[in-house]
Amino acid sequence: MTGTQIRLNHIFGRDGKSVVVAMDHGLPGMFPLGHLADPASLLDAVAAGGADAILTTPGLARRFAPHIGKLGLIVRLDGGTTPIGDAPRSSSLIATPEDAMRLGADAVAVMGFCGTEDEGRSLATLGKVATECRALELPLMAEMLPLGFGAEPTVEEIALAARIAAEMGVDIVKTKFVGPQEAYRQVTETCFAPVLILGGSERELGQVTDTIGQAVAAGVAGVAMGRSVWRSSDVRGTVGAIVAALHGRAPYTRAENGVAPA
Amino acid sequence: MTGTQIRLNHIFGRDGKSVVVAMDHGLPGMFPLGHLADPASLLDAVAAGGADAILTTPGLARRFAPHIGKLGLIVRLDGGTTPIGDAPRSSSLIATPEDAMRLGADAVAVMGFCGTEDEGRSLATLGKVATECRALELPLMAEMLPLGFGAEPTVEEIALAARIAAEMGVDIVKTKFVGPQEAYRQVTETCFAPVLILGGSERELGQVTDTIGQAVAAGVAGVAMGRSVWRSSDVRGTVGAIVAALHGRAPYTRAENGVAPA
Amino acid sequence: MTGTQIRLNHIFGRDGKSVVVAMDHGLPGMFPLGHLADPASLLDAVAAGGADAILTTPGLARRFAPHIGKLGLIVRLDGGTTPIGDAPRSSSLIATPEDAMRLGADAVAVMGFCGTEDEGRSLATLGKVATECRALELPLMAEMLPLGFGAEPTVEEIALAARIAAEMGVDIVKTKFVGPQEAYRQVTETCFAPVLILGGSERELGQVTDTIGQAVAAGVAGVAMGRSVWRSSDVRGTVGAIVAALHGRAPYTRAENGVAPA
Amino acid sequence: MTGTQIRLNHIFGRDGKSVVVAMDHGLPGMFPLGHLADPASLLDAVAAGGADAILTTPGLARRFAPHIGKLGLIVRLDGGTTPIGDAPRSSSLIATPEDAMRLGADAVAVMGFCGTEDEGRSLATLGKVATECRALELPLMAEMLPLGFGAEPTVEEIALAARIAAEMGVDIVKTKFVGPQEAYRQVTETCFAPVLILGGSERELGQVTDTIGQAVAAGVAGVAMGRSVWRSSDVRGTVGAIVAALHGRAPYTRAENGVAPA
Amino acid sequence: MTGTQIRLNHIFGRDGKSVVVAMDHGLPGMFPLGHLADPASLLDAVAAGGADAILTTPGLARRFAPHIGKLGLIVRLDGGTTPIGDAPRSSSLIATPEDAMRLGADAVAVMGFCGTEDEGRSLATLGKVATECRALELPLMAEMLPLGFGAEPTVEEIALAARIAAEMGVDIVKTKFVGPQEAYRQVTETCFAPVLILGGSERELGQVTDTIGQAVAAGVAGVAMGRSVWRSSDVRGTVGAIVAALHGRAPYTRAENGVAPA
Repeated sequence: MTGTQIRLNHIFGRDGKSVVVAMDHGLPGMFPLGHLADPASLLDAVAAGGADAILTTPGLARRFAPHIGKLGLIVRLDGGTTPIGDAPRSSSLIATPEDAMRLGADAVAVMGFCGTEDEGRSLATLGKVATECRALELPLMAEMLPLGFGAEPTVEEIALAARIAAEMGVDIVKTKFVGPQEAYRQVTETCFAPVLILGGSERELGQVTDTIGQAVAAGVAGVAMGRSVWRSSDVRGTVGAIVAALHGRAPYTRAENGVAPA
Repeated sequence: MTGTQIRLNHIFGRDGKSVVVAMDHGLPGMFPLGHLADPASLLDAVAAGGADAILTTPGLARRFAPHIGKLGLIVRLDGGTTPIGDAPRSSSLIATPEDAMRLGADAVAVMGFCGTEDEGRSLATLGKVATECRALELPLMAEMLPLGFGAEPTVEEIALAARIAAEMGVDIVKTKFVGPQEAYRQVTETCFAPVLILGGSERELGQVTDTIGQAVAAGVAGVAMGRSVWRSSDVRGTVGAIVAALHGRAPYTRAENGVAPA
Repeated sequence: MTGTQIRLNHIFGRDGKSVVVAMDHGLPGMFPLGHLADPASLLDAVAAGGADAILTTPGLARRFAPHIGKLGLIVRLDGGTTPIGDAPRSSSLIATPEDAMRLGADAVAVMGFCGTEDEGRSLATLGKVATECRALELPLMAEMLPLGFGAEPTVEEIALAARIAAEMGVDIVKTKFVGPQEAYRQVTETCFAPVLILGGSERELGQVTDTIGQAVAAGVAGVAMGRSVWRSSDVRGTVGAIVAALHGRAPYTRAENGVAPA
Repeated sequence: MTGTQIRLNHIFGRDGKSVVVAMDHGLPGMFPLGHLADPASLLDAVAAGGADAILTTPGLARRFAPHIGKLGLIVRLDGGTTPIGDAPRSSSLIATPEDAMRLGADAVAVMGFCGTEDEGRSLATLGKVATECRALELPLMAEMLPLGFGAEPTVEEIALAARIAAEMGVDIVKTKFVGPQEAYRQVTETCFAPVLILGGSERELGQVTDTIGQAVAAGVAGVAMGRSVWRSSDVRGTVGAIVAALHGRAPYTRAENGVAPA
Repeated sequence: MTGTQIRLNHIFGRDGKSVVVAMDHGLPGMFPLGHLADPASLLDAVAAGGADAILTTPGLARRFAPHIGKLGLIVRLDGGTTPIGDAPRSSSLIATPEDAMRLGADAVAVMGFCGTEDEGRSLATLGKVATECRALELPLMAEMLPLGFGAEPTVEEIALAARIAAEMGVDIVKTKFVGPQEAYRQVTETCFAPVLILGGSERELGQVTDTIGQAVAAGVAGVAMGRSVWRSSDVRGTVGAIVAALHGRAPYTRAENGVAPA
């Protein structure tokens, strides 16, 4: 497990927590892109804000490697649906663990749908990727979405989905946070992999940090958020505030990322 | 066959019998989890009770390796259906024999459905896994379920299914026990692989040990039980009683597992 | 072709003829099993009766290797349908040529359906297995069933199916015998691989040896029979009589199989 | 391209022309077989007649290698439909370029259907085989059939199909000849691979040589004919007359095939 | 990324721009072929006109390698639909990145359909090819067609599709140009791979150079045009004018292609 541990060290801080900025929205064709339209300056701001890692695509990682710097790199392996036309929604692998490893990834990410029509195929793909990752000692993040995108799952459904991912051997579970925080402990206590909560649609910073506070109290290990970051007018400030809320320290001080205190 | 034999030695006692505790229920999302919510302490109690082996998932095995200790390790390779939503039931491989071998497994397990709509695909998968296992000298347990989960197959149907598994080359057959015990001899006498009986839903310890007595008299080589163990309030005691019923010795005396007599 | 020839030597006598006892009926779940319920003693009797080879499954071969002795070993690679429940009939590969080679097989066997709904898939599988066998110099037996199990094909249909198998490169064709014997010569003369006739359902010994006489006169190279052998009360005697009918010598004298004359 | 050239030298004469005798009709179950029922003597007559090459199956090539002698060897890789029963027509690969290479083939052949229901799958298979052949430097013949077996395509449709094959990288196009010869030049001029015309159903020798005359004038590089050859009473004479018509020399003089002049 | 860069150098000039002449229309059976009927002289004229690269098929590249000379070589990997008959349209890979690499390709090209019924399969194939290309350091061109062939996508749909391709990791995006030029900047500014505009149906030279002027002003890196070139009466002149319009220099002066100034 040495390789797995070394790579997870690039994603999680010494406190076991992680702020991941999701920058993978261009792959499924999400518009408007906000600061994501200019990945180079966005990456600089994300690093300056003290984020631990980014979740992005093979193409973006490959093109903007110099701007990724010391940020942990999680590469998304699945995609396939666009908002153009009326094509039936579908998802498929567009890269492989071996490919991501070659690109320098510290981890890879795939979706895990439960309770949707596509559940069987989705979990089979998750299992296959998990198996390949184990062979490479490459950590795997599963984005577990009970009932699919946009659904409002119960905390029990989230707990089930998170545990299933852990049983398959994923190293990080990304899933939805739902209150109240006491109830959410059943998610973090039965899932034996760290849970990062997703951001979902764009929200105000106050709401975001408030949610982080509740989530940390419920045993969550971090966040993986995108739109609230790259659609904000002040990316560095937003990331810094999220870092402060999660890691419990003043923003702009991650000297190990080469960022001087503000 | 040396590798196969060495690995089977980790699962069966010198008397050719085995108490396997099934701990793979988190993968298909079975709740409530009882003591399975805390795998570390459950594994410690299972080992202390004198079990021979566990049947679990790649994720659980990987995360709790120190607590598995000298317990034989059987890794389940298939999964894929959850109780969330209305997704059509399906099953698929979520790991491979090679992957399980790398994790230190002594055997792997897959389902074998007979007489269900999915029979063709299920038996083809079983054959494929059996072939891969032979190449690795990794023992294979097939969980043969005539007519599927929750069905009430006849003893003739169980005998047929068990023999089919043996012809495919599986090393251990896990299947249902149905009385009367004299009739069940046709299962164990025509199946040329050892038969372990499954536990099914949670039952009282008295019922369990009673069934074990009948099954042993019918030629069965052991048990592979889960819910009756990890939902009981006294896991160590329950396992110890099952060990006593099967191996015919006093509970709590498996010194080779580092457990001192009670 | 050296490897192919050496392996075929283990199946055919120096007279180019072969008595193959089929013992693969447990795989598709055929019951009652007669002496096949106890493979060890059945194999001993088959060898003692002077048979050249057996056709069996990976599981049976692996478990009873000591009892196979000098009998030629043909391993069936396909299976998949059981008599349990109402599952749609299907057939698929449950092992591979490489796997059989590792088990010590002298040849492998697969079905070849012609004129059935499944024809396309069946012949594609036959071609694939034939290709893999050529790479390994492992002889291949195709069981050609025009119109499927239980059909009554004409001699022309049998001739067509047998020739198709030969064109694909199979080394042995197992197919049905239909009289009259003069007409059957078109099968053996246009098929440039040796033809073994199958036994089908259980028959009396007199009928069996009578058929063998006609078949040999029509150019057939041997038999591959199962139920008439392992359901008979005297397996050794039955095999001996078949050997005598085919090879034209007294039964019980295959000293090279370590069997003393009766 | 050295390997490709060396192998093509075994199929085409120094004049760039080739008489290929098709002997692959047993694979799809075409009856009656005429002289094809006895491949050994047919091959001897074909060689004696001065043919350049044969198109045959893996099984026939493997069994009658000594009789193939110096004849160029083109191995058909696809098959799968029989005239038995009512099975839906289908075609699939029954061997691979690597397998044919091992058998000593100078080229392989597959069908290319255009404008049929199966077009997409057929051209995908053709592309896959072409790719494998390039890796092995093994020449590929595509039998391009616009609108399928038995159709009457226009010369424009034949030209399109032939060019498509060339763009995919095939080395030899086998397709239908339709008059008038002036119009057919659009086929040979836009297809940048040599075109061999197929024979189709059995015809009289006079008709055959007449067609060859027209085809050569239209830029065709040879013929690939079967039934008109192996159903004729005088195979050697028929082949000799075709050779004379194509190569423009007296029959029976291919000393390099070890055949003395008549 | 050294291999990728070296190969891209063969396609783009030092000014980062590229004139690619598309010569892949024979694969899907487009007729009439104009000068494409005679690839050798067409290639000579294209090179003389100063083009940077060609987009063609494996077959054409292989057969006319001497005429390709120093032209950059982009090999199309997909095909499969013909105008013959009523076959359902389909597309599939007919070659692989490894195959193209062996042929000496500097890049490969595949289609990327968005918003069509086939979208899911198309983008999955694109992802698979992108992954294979990265392993080989072989540049990939994706031809992104929102809503399919012949559709009139909006500039927003083109921007989305182009960005999706970039996120998948393609190195060159070929797509449609639609005016007005100011609006088209959203395509080139959000797509972090160079954009080449396609030609579509045959047009007059004046129209073509006019479009190139607008496109360059909108940030486009070049053109990939076919019919307007190979159906023109003066190929060298047409290519020269396109080169002049794009690279902003006098036609006929690419001395590095061995072409003397006119």
